Amino acid sequence: MTAYEQFEQHIAELNDILNSISVLKWDARTNMPSGGAATRGNQLATLSRIAQEHFVSDKTAQFLDAAEAEVASENKDSYRVRAVQQTRQYFELVKHIPVEVTSKRATLAPISEQVWSEAKQNNDFASFAPYLQQMLDLSKEQAEAVGYTGHPFDALVFEYEPSATAASLKVLFDDLKAGLLPLLKKIVANDKPLEKDLWQHEYALDKQKSFGWEMAQKIGYDTQRGRLDIAPHPFEISFTRNDVRITTRYNLNYLPMALFGTLHETGHALYEQGVDPSLTRTALTTDFLGQYPVGGTSYGAHESQSRLWENQIGRSREFWEVHFDRLRQIFPEQMADADPDLMYRSVNRVKPSLIRVEADEVTYNLHIMLRTEIEMGLLDGGLKVTDLPEIWNAKMEEYLGVTPPNDSKGVLQDVHWSGGGFGSFPGYTVGNVMSAQFLKAAHEQVTGLDASLGHGDYMPLLGWLQSNVYRHGRAYSANELLQRSTGTELHVKPYLEYLETKFSELYGLS
Amino acid sequence: MTAYEQFEQHIAELNDILNSISVLKWDARTNMPSGGAATRGNQLATLSRIAQEHFVSDKTAQFLDAAEAEVASENKDSYRVRAVQQTRQYFELVKHIPVEVTSKRATLAPISEQVWSEAKQNNDFASFAPYLQQMLDLSKEQAEAVGYTGHPFDALVFEYEPSATAASLKVLFDDLKAGLLPLLKKIVANDKPLEKDLWQHEYALDKQKSFGWEMAQKIGYDTQRGRLDIAPHPFEISFTRNDVRITTRYNLNYLPMALFGTLHETGHALYEQGVDPSLTRTALTTDFLGQYPVGGTSYGAHESQSRLWENQIGRSREFWEVHFDRLRQIFPEQMADADPDLMYRSVNRVKPSLIRVEADEVTYNLHIMLRTEIEMGLLDGGLKVTDLPEIWNAKMEEYLGVTPPNDSKGVLQDVHWSGGGFGSFPGYTVGNVMSAQFLKAAHEQVTGLDASLGHGDYMPLLGWLQSNVYRHGRAYSANELLQRSTGTELHVKPYLEYLETKFSELYGLS
Repeated sequence: MTAYEQFEQHIAELNDILNSISVLKWDARTNMPSGGAATRGNQLATLSRIAQEHFVSDKTAQFLDAAEAEVASENKDSYRVRAVQQTRQYFELVKHIPVEVTSKRATLAPISEQVWSEAKQNNDFASFAPYLQQMLDLSKEQAEAVGYTGHPFDALVFEYEPSATAASLKVLFDDLKAGLLPLLKKIVANDKPLEKDLWQHEYALDKQKSFGWEMAQKIGYDTQRGRLDIAPHPFEISFTRNDVRITTRYNLNYLPMALFGTLHETGHALYEQGVDPSLTRTALTTDFLGQYPVGGTSYGAHESQSRLWENQIGRSREFWEVHFDRLRQIFPEQMADADPDLMYRSVNRVKPSLIRVEADEVTYNLHIMLRTEIEMGLLDGGLKVTDLPEIWNAKMEEYLGVTPPNDSKGVLQDVHWSGGGFGSFPGYTVGNVMSAQFLKAAHEQVTGLDASLGHGDYMPLLGWLQSNVYRHGRAYSANELLQRSTGTELHVKPYLEYLETKFSELYGLS
Repeated sequence: MTAYEQFEQHIAELNDILNSISVLKWDARTNMPSGGAATRGNQLATLSRIAQEHFVSDKTAQFLDAAEAEVASENKDSYRVRAVQQTRQYFELVKHIPVEVTSKRATLAPISEQVWSEAKQNNDFASFAPYLQQMLDLSKEQAEAVGYTGHPFDALVFEYEPSATAASLKVLFDDLKAGLLPLLKKIVANDKPLEKDLWQHEYALDKQKSFGWEMAQKIGYDTQRGRLDIAPHPFEISFTRNDVRITTRYNLNYLPMALFGTLHETGHALYEQGVDPSLTRTALTTDFLGQYPVGGTSYGAHESQSRLWENQIGRSREFWEVHFDRLRQIFPEQMADADPDLMYRSVNRVKPSLIRVEADEVTYNLHIMLRTEIEMGLLDGGLKVTDLPEIWNAKMEEYLGVTPPNDSKGVLQDVHWSGGGFGSFPGYTVGNVMSAQFLKAAHEQVTGLDASLGHGDYMPLLGWLQSNVYRHGRAYSANELLQRSTGTELHVKPYLEYLETKFSELYGLS
């Protein structure tokens, strides 16, 4: 074996261990009987420790050095060079995170999440505050250890969105706000109820499932390499490109929950299923930090695909012109008086509301900005943990014009902070912005794309995304992907244009 | 930490890895999309290698030495002493198996199984013979390396049934044959068709499942620590006593397939769920060889429980007197003209037949004897691989009075040999024999057991089995369990008495 092959074999084994952990997690969230939780925790802890020992080892250091030497003169954009680079980058990162921080967080996180869950139930922020403080202190310690040039947030966001910094996000958010806030204001002023409420009917679960499964396949999900299950907190997860699973949850009245949840997770799955087969079990499909089962290059890049397929395709007028008849075939009574136009308008209602995960396309990013601004304040000392409920409510009023009646529906709504996930939120907005850039470029580069989408043929779009985004796995950063495929860096214009065009038409704005 | 605690921690991690492997296997057999097979193979191979390295390590040797010293003066029957003993026993065994044999078998087994599968489909023993020969040679090599005093079979059967030897099995089989063959002859002579064929109806899958699930719970399956799924080759598997899963397969006409399959696997599950909680993640619930997810002490001990609950309880007259009404409630049309007596007779038909897994209680063990006798002959050189079809058919004629029309329904029917599983078959018969010894002892020791079984109250029996068998995990050998709970060694009398009483009544024998 050459040095590179030895390196590759060593990483392939790490990939196997991390994917095995993902199987255990998938099972825990979909199938595991309640009694199994504690010993599943032991199994996950042991495998995670083994994965970490395998990665942060003298062997890795040695294989890396030798592989670097072997590929030194090769094309800088080649997968081999990128595989070595990625491994080096995370090897150095993990080496710099103090072992005490990792182990303290591992021990504290489940307790903190439990306390958060109870605090949310009891609307009791004060009981959660000390745990949040501890998780925050650990993240601060990590940021200092890893180092940063600008804002401490930079060191944390790197784990989720390597191309982003506090400064770049501030620009992105200001640009977005400048477009979103006036648009939202006009929509709210022009809002009137729809003539019919399609969500007063009941939609049987098995029929919802079969329609969602059919639509997932329409947009290109390969069911020989995937499956759909139920989970209370839906997610996509992969154990190599050959086994990429999605989950959704069902509301018997509110049809959009499961359907768009399925399309959203299918978008993630298309990314993972579309990775070049030669990258299987390589560094370029290995999530070294083992925090999130992501085969793609960043949270944002991944979210760009879930959002694109869910919203820009699934919530488009063309989609419902093609697929409404099939929906009515499955739900003839419920859809008796409906038509594609009513369906389109029903799945695109805009309403400033309290809860992020229920937000529409226009208000969603305002929820993200609020969280990110708060995180930055906590990390640079501008904000204190005890200030959070007050600042949260003030920002909700400022951005969305609504005030949470209590902390459960306010600052306590998301799980992320309780586990120390500072830096993960911006990926959602980066993803939204990227999705429009990709779609615009696809329209420019693929002849007849409008026509094929109008006929419900998604293969030309999937093909473009596959060859420009999916196949590269983690070989190129989010910014590199944008540069290579669209010729530009991350910027908000296509996304704002998309929202303005779509919602101006929907709400009759001038 | 004391030396014992260090030892315990080290084994707990091995237990975690082996149980993680079991989760991956369960998933592969129940949920995995077909595309995932190859990379799941990589994941299993990597985890298996890690498990082996963890076990056969200097650390294990060192912890074992220290733990042995610490427990040297403790009670020889204590769990601590037994945990150390078990670990030592398997540590020495695995150390003696040449690495080349293990790796050759690991490489060859999947290919050999594939060839067997095709040979079975095409009725082509000749194509399988060279692979069978290679698997046999590896097993012979292993037997020589591990060593034995009597027959080479002894070295192999040890992995499945540590208390058994070729000599002890010969006695057991002769005793059994002396009772079974005359009984079978009388049954065949007295056989006449039932007045109605209950299996001409159709039984909806979901209703079959709900009845089976209900019966599993009646006999004591804890659903908070288990679940029931579909699998083409049904099995029970556990990832500690807190997560013990069963599977079954459904035939829409032949109700007994899924129902007794469910009760059979539930019997296995009751064993695993009943292990003392203090043994969780210890050597006494660790299957060091990683061949079979068995938390119990041997194949036979485990099978004694699946057989007991499936046959001696599930196929008893009392069971159907209690539960037939419920079955008729679920299948009112199909069971309209039936009654408990017809149901009892319908699920206890005896008929010499070609296929082991479809055999009734009386003929089942004859299938096992035939296989075991052939294995012994192959191992001591008395038989050649090329002789197998002929000797198989001759023995089928001798024991069962039927001759396979082709090798697919003869010597090629079982997967075991293709993977090198020589020595595993006797466990089925040992289990049958043990089951009757246990049940007899329970009747002698539990006051009013007849009455409680007659009322469908299985808790007194479960309690006796739990406290005499299940709770000990792998602490005592099958023979020790029998000695401690019944006062005798393995012997066939209770089992033959059970069969003779039951089938004499059923077939009106004098």
